[in-house]
Amino acid sequence: MSKKTLRVDGERLMKRLDELAKRGAREDGGCNRLAFTEADKEGRDLVTGWMRELGMKVSIDAIGNAVALRPGLEDGPPVMAGSHIDTVRTGGRYDGNYGVLSGLEIVEMLKDAGITTRRPLAVAFFSNEEGSRVAPDMMGSLVYVGGFGLAEAHAAVTIDGKRVGDELDRIGYRGDATLPGPVPYAYVELHIEQGPVLEAEGFRIGAVTGVQGISWTEVTVRGQSNHAGTTPMSYRHDAGYVAGEAAAFVRRLTKEMGGTQVGTVGAINLEPNLVNVVAQKAIFTVDLRNTEEKLLQSAEARLDEFLGKIADAEGVQVSTRRLARFEPVNFDPRMISLVEQTASSLGANVRRLPAGAGHDAQMLARVCPSGMIFTPSVKGLSHNPREHTDPADLELGANVLLQTVLTLTETDPFPAAS
Amino acid sequence: MSKKTLRVDGERLMKRLDELAKRGAREDGGCNRLAFTEADKEGRDLVTGWMRELGMKVSIDAIGNAVALRPGLEDGPPVMAGSHIDTVRTGGRYDGNYGVLSGLEIVEMLKDAGITTRRPLAVAFFSNEEGSRVAPDMMGSLVYVGGFGLAEAHAAVTIDGKRVGDELDRIGYRGDATLPGPVPYAYVELHIEQGPVLEAEGFRIGAVTGVQGISWTEVTVRGQSNHAGTTPMSYRHDAGYVAGEAAAFVRRLTKEMGGTQVGTVGAINLEPNLVNVVAQKAIFTVDLRNTEEKLLQSAEARLDEFLGKIADAEGVQVSTRRLARFEPVNFDPRMISLVEQTASSLGANVRRLPAGAGHDAQMLARVCPSGMIFTPSVKGLSHNPREHTDPADLELGANVLLQTVLTLTETDPFPAAS
Repeated sequence: MSKKTLRVDGERLMKRLDELAKRGAREDGGCNRLAFTEADKEGRDLVTGWMRELGMKVSIDAIGNAVALRPGLEDGPPVMAGSHIDTVRTGGRYDGNYGVLSGLEIVEMLKDAGITTRRPLAVAFFSNEEGSRVAPDMMGSLVYVGGFGLAEAHAAVTIDGKRVGDELDRIGYRGDATLPGPVPYAYVELHIEQGPVLEAEGFRIGAVTGVQGISWTEVTVRGQSNHAGTTPMSYRHDAGYVAGEAAAFVRRLTKEMGGTQVGTVGAINLEPNLVNVVAQKAIFTVDLRNTEEKLLQSAEARLDEFLGKIADAEGVQVSTRRLARFEPVNFDPRMISLVEQTASSLGANVRRLPAGAGHDAQMLARVCPSGMIFTPSVKGLSHNPREHTDPADLELGANVLLQTVLTLTETDPFPAAS
Repeated sequence: MSKKTLRVDGERLMKRLDELAKRGAREDGGCNRLAFTEADKEGRDLVTGWMRELGMKVSIDAIGNAVALRPGLEDGPPVMAGSHIDTVRTGGRYDGNYGVLSGLEIVEMLKDAGITTRRPLAVAFFSNEEGSRVAPDMMGSLVYVGGFGLAEAHAAVTIDGKRVGDELDRIGYRGDATLPGPVPYAYVELHIEQGPVLEAEGFRIGAVTGVQGISWTEVTVRGQSNHAGTTPMSYRHDAGYVAGEAAAFVRRLTKEMGGTQVGTVGAINLEPNLVNVVAQKAIFTVDLRNTEEKLLQSAEARLDEFLGKIADAEGVQVSTRRLARFEPVNFDPRMISLVEQTASSLGANVRRLPAGAGHDAQMLARVCPSGMIFTPSVKGLSHNPREHTDPADLELGANVLLQTVLTLTETDPFPAAS
């Protein structure tokens, strides 16, 4: 049979998505599998169990990344399909999971069809892509490609005060596979868009051109706690006020810069956080993203300038800590074209677009040709229990992944890299 | 001996303040005795023990107010000295405690001198003056004067999810004394200023003219959680941004209104409160105060208008809940003059000033002539572990309380009220 006519089993894919969504299930239908938690462990146990059932050899490295291998007719580096299975606290069922489980669906379909690919095939999930419990995000893939030291990653402290290394030991996912990890022939990540563009413009597949640069800053403001009634306004050193003005500034900044610039103050913590006490301390986060490195640097500089000015005006001390910083990434043009052509050949209307979120693919892009396939997110909702993608779109995306992977295993699109 | 020459024992007063500060002591030297907690119970046990040691009869009512009585030569309503012994989480050692323990110092001094006053003398502490753990503040004195129903007070829920009635049972301070409580002949509250005015202007005693009106609002913003990278700014319904703009607005409002208007956003809680998720929910508090009722109403109206406008602009739902609302209070002019003259007769330079904070005296003022004596707060710090008043000022204030109380017990300044 021609490999070109192979198609995934959409129902089997949905079943796996449903089953994984039961791990860390939220009452509202979403998922809460923050990295390295008990729920994350349950998700990992389920997925690695499926990998082994499919006859794949599962390697776990010391940051908890899982790589399952299916041998090819030839030796050499595998074509890797991957993503992540951790979620934010208010996560949906598709973000990350979709790419990993579509990889397993491809393997099962090939197995059922009795097909062995020419190059080996790998399906991977990388640890702590979200970074919601501990920064930086994309921690696992960054360590995999040698961009972040293992000791530093192990020493990172979660928002609930635990060290990553200890948490990996606790859940039994500090493995011994080589790090940095083996370099694949190519890496393809299938993912929901998590934004509104494809749906709004009527496209079913996105050929991702690259990933926005990300800058995460934690800002600590030290003011003076005082009585909210007796302290004249001119005597105040109000850390809570500074946090509020900063959230307002970030919005103003995005308006003034326009383009792809986005900015979010997603976390604010005041001390003592009481109605009648001027806050002595505020810790808040600023998430800035842009597809252009120079513009992202400009946004960062303007934030720094704002913080310096308001610190002087309010008489507070402001310090900042970089939680994460990634430059914008441009995917290999050959991979973008391959995804685009594959989608077209399957009858999907496809457009090129950049990714607004960080993805493991941007880390893999440092070591091998990498690309991403997007499917539409209804109303652009993501990091939200109501995150949704039409099952027909999920199946279509998985078929684009399948045919993209088969082109990569059976042909030689990157002669220089082989 | 003439009662006019009687003076308190400053060292004995300091010893009691030090001893009470050990209950709920913070490592930084401050106190954390949030109302109805174990630390509050320890403070209550200590102070009621002292009351009994001094031969006073202690009555506890069903909201936990404690009134200790020392009989006079005549029957009839007592002159009451009182305040509170609960603190904010980051409290100092003097706020409240100073007034209560100075009352005990007066009783001990009279006892040692073998003096029985003409009118009875009462020393009281009222429950939950701060309102930091459960609103409204001044809960105990408000129930005492019949301004707040006992059932409603018992049903109030603390920030840690407990009912006040259950907490009173737990710490053993749901007593059976009559409520509303017996009306005193007059009420005098000695208190630290908690603001910078006396120190900055070189006065040692303040004769308090009244109390600012207080308006506490809890604002809940319901937006939509979404991915901080992939959601274009124009698609956002960001509850965290709205909270930030509100904190900035409150500051702007106080600038525009000027005068005695103060405003504070002391508490902000976001959900899910993560760096890379647009907040779906924000709950924050607004504390507004003014000495003029009309201006306070105007501030409230402008806050409402702001919230309505930003809710429309951002596409979020905003709801508000009144946590506390007290009109400005003007003390009896005869009490203000009495405090002023008594301070002058003791050689203290004294000025009249309004209280910026809420005090139990404003509740007692509903039922009897009431007044307050202020002593300076170093740098105006209060609700802060570094809250401090010079021991010489504490002693002077206690002597002003003593001589004011003696004028009230021995003479008839309020013929209409007797």
